[in-house]
Amino acid sequence: MSETDTPPSSKVIRNDPWYGSYAARAEAMRASEIRALFAVASRPEVVSLAGGMPYLEYMPFKELSELIAKMMVDKGDVAWQYGSAQGDPHLREDVLQIMELEGITDAQPDDVVITNGSQNALDLITRIMCDPGDVVLSEAPNYVGALGAFQSFQVEVVNVMLDENGLIPESFEQTIVEQRKLGKKVKFLYTVPNFHNPAGVTLSVERRPRILEIARKYHVLIVEDNPYGLLGFNGQTYPAMRSMDNQNVVYMSSFSKIIAPGMRIAWMIAPPGIRQKLVLANEASVLCPPNMSQFTIATYLDNFDWKKQINDYRGMYKERCDTMDAALHEYLPYCSWHKPKGGFYIWLKIPEGLDSRAMLPRAVTAKVAYVAGTGFYTNGEGRDHMRLSFCYPTPDRIHEGVRRLAGVIDAERETTELFGTSGVPDSDPRDPEYPGPQVR
Amino acid sequence: MSETDTPPSSKVIRNDPWYGSYAARAEAMRASEIRALFAVASRPEVVSLAGGMPYLEYMPFKELSELIAKMMVDKGDVAWQYGSAQGDPHLREDVLQIMELEGITDAQPDDVVITNGSQNALDLITRIMCDPGDVVLSEAPNYVGALGAFQSFQVEVVNVMLDENGLIPESFEQTIVEQRKLGKKVKFLYTVPNFHNPAGVTLSVERRPRILEIARKYHVLIVEDNPYGLLGFNGQTYPAMRSMDNQNVVYMSSFSKIIAPGMRIAWMIAPPGIRQKLVLANEASVLCPPNMSQFTIATYLDNFDWKKQINDYRGMYKERCDTMDAALHEYLPYCSWHKPKGGFYIWLKIPEGLDSRAMLPRAVTAKVAYVAGTGFYTNGEGRDHMRLSFCYPTPDRIHEGVRRLAGVIDAERETTELFGTSGVPDSDPRDPEYPGPQVR
Repeated sequence: MSETDTPPSSKVIRNDPWYGSYAARAEAMRASEIRALFAVASRPEVVSLAGGMPYLEYMPFKELSELIAKMMVDKGDVAWQYGSAQGDPHLREDVLQIMELEGITDAQPDDVVITNGSQNALDLITRIMCDPGDVVLSEAPNYVGALGAFQSFQVEVVNVMLDENGLIPESFEQTIVEQRKLGKKVKFLYTVPNFHNPAGVTLSVERRPRILEIARKYHVLIVEDNPYGLLGFNGQTYPAMRSMDNQNVVYMSSFSKIIAPGMRIAWMIAPPGIRQKLVLANEASVLCPPNMSQFTIATYLDNFDWKKQINDYRGMYKERCDTMDAALHEYLPYCSWHKPKGGFYIWLKIPEGLDSRAMLPRAVTAKVAYVAGTGFYTNGEGRDHMRLSFCYPTPDRIHEGVRRLAGVIDAERETTELFGTSGVPDSDPRDPEYPGPQVR
Repeated sequence: MSETDTPPSSKVIRNDPWYGSYAARAEAMRASEIRALFAVASRPEVVSLAGGMPYLEYMPFKELSELIAKMMVDKGDVAWQYGSAQGDPHLREDVLQIMELEGITDAQPDDVVITNGSQNALDLITRIMCDPGDVVLSEAPNYVGALGAFQSFQVEVVNVMLDENGLIPESFEQTIVEQRKLGKKVKFLYTVPNFHNPAGVTLSVERRPRILEIARKYHVLIVEDNPYGLLGFNGQTYPAMRSMDNQNVVYMSSFSKIIAPGMRIAWMIAPPGIRQKLVLANEASVLCPPNMSQFTIATYLDNFDWKKQINDYRGMYKERCDTMDAALHEYLPYCSWHKPKGGFYIWLKIPEGLDSRAMLPRAVTAKVAYVAGTGFYTNGEGRDHMRLSFCYPTPDRIHEGVRRLAGVIDAERETTELFGTSGVPDSDPRDPEYPGPQVR
């Protein structure tokens, strides 16, 4: 959800005549209480450290507009027409050079499926792999958008542990074994190896082959979601797991973070049998990805120095991350966090006894917004964490936002110390709210 | 699927190591044998009467390109950014004036959900309403894309009868009663009331309130899919069922046929409780519809005389329909069909004993393509019908296509008369192939 957005559907619907008629998967879908806050949080006076929007102000829109106009004159009748369910062949060729930067050199255009953003890619892979009750393994804290897709297909999400070097291989193996003992079908491991959202950590290069080995040993598919891989602050990249195994990995990436999200264009590569089903699932889901978006992205890739632009993004996000890290050291030295080496997010641990979810309204009142940690779990965990995004606000806003946040946390600590609680009763240990991918 | 498209995933995948690991819903997903034909059918020498692509050559791409360039300069940073899961507020306002043309005057922007084409709208409504095994009622022959969406959520499609005045109310009521006796949950009626795809018929104005009355009596939701309503050849429109009942109807329409499909922008309006879940489902499915597409459509609507353009489309499609009708009278007088009053399709009944599916490879060899009737049923019916599209080929190509088709059908009849069969053994009475929305 964009920060300039008004919250859709935030009102409580009373006396819904269709109550009781919905699918089981939809009964749990409710407008989040957090949504109501977003209306306030999107006011300009609030510093939002909540959203996961890339900062686009430096895009060459003037030059772009001329090239897009030319594309419309030359190819408007195709750009405005239906396209292939697998995606435009030219763009499928284009994405190969992007993946080469992370070591994937054996992919062919026919291996690629273009999707309506990674969200739809997550939807498609879950749709073709998972029956209700099947298990997907996923790092905790989880990427919220993935939880939404899994929930849609009534998948049981089982968490695998993460440390500062990313997914822990032993935890992966142990969880497979445990789930099989319970009679569960483990369909795939969902992992964000680089600059994890929200945890900020990166899977160490040493662990990658070990995870693949476990996947092969137990015949569990790996879904490698890599939207941030090219946003390493020092230009460093890590070899994709897909570069080490083309049979057991479905790889997905997106233009949303490295270029811009408004086209909703992402892609997947998959082994042939899976890829064939993904194309059919894409048809059932959206018929075909938008040609206008695909042609716009291709126009950009073909005419601009996109490698330089990504490098500029890296520098910009590095500065913002450094600013946030410094401000946290200055104002919240008693909190703890792992400083990420790339990406968009810092996963902040707040002092014992505080509750990030309960505190959020008071933060918004103090004109700073974040995402409470509970949004990244399905089991009510996460109250001791919050996700802070440094991607969209400018450095001075980030500094100011952290300063305001510190004011709120300081006040909470005082209250807790005085009364032994942050003063907000909460009888439900499980977070019933799906906060929605506005936190991406 | 576009006619210029190569067939994705048409190769048979042998020794898929993931065979047996897929979801039940995906096991039935197979690349259709029809797909292989599409590669041939898309050659320029073949007259394709198969696709459902609008004809875009008269679109003012030159003028449009300048306005889109201006939009990019003025609003590029928003057009390229994430948007709201409910859709852009300006576009949600814009669609109200389109719906007014069919009598919907009480809708508000907050009732609207923008989707990635109607295919995704079908996905969303099925996702929130249907558990596996639930029943959806649908006119037979069925719109293929809807069957794909229903199959994704393991819905049981039960057909309701159709005649030249559209859906038969008595059949609707009787089917509800029968299904309830069987203990089935009937979740909604899916109907394309105007210029049905593929049947070409329109629901009479008299029947509309009767169908609503039955829906209310049994508390069955109506999903009214109306992509063609403004394409009545004489400028006639019919009151939407949604205009008569705002509590029991989910209405959907699309820009794909009245303007262009390359943006993949459609919309739904729904009662508040349902609409709220649709927004959450939209987030889980695609996060948000593409801003670039939404801004492009809005730029078009705000700057061009779109009513005149739709009127031009009507005239163009009327001429093409007249041409096809006349050619059928000239070359295939022994077939039967209902001449549509709008839309894109003629549903042709072929002589007794012929099999439209078995005949298709011979038609493509004779350089004409159509969609076999079996694609519009889930139970193997439809061999005695084919869908002919008059939307995309020019009138002279339509005339030539029907002439070629007549050659094929004539030859089949001779074979049948000589041998008592069209010569193609077929032991499977049920069509195992989901032909995919390429036939839209």
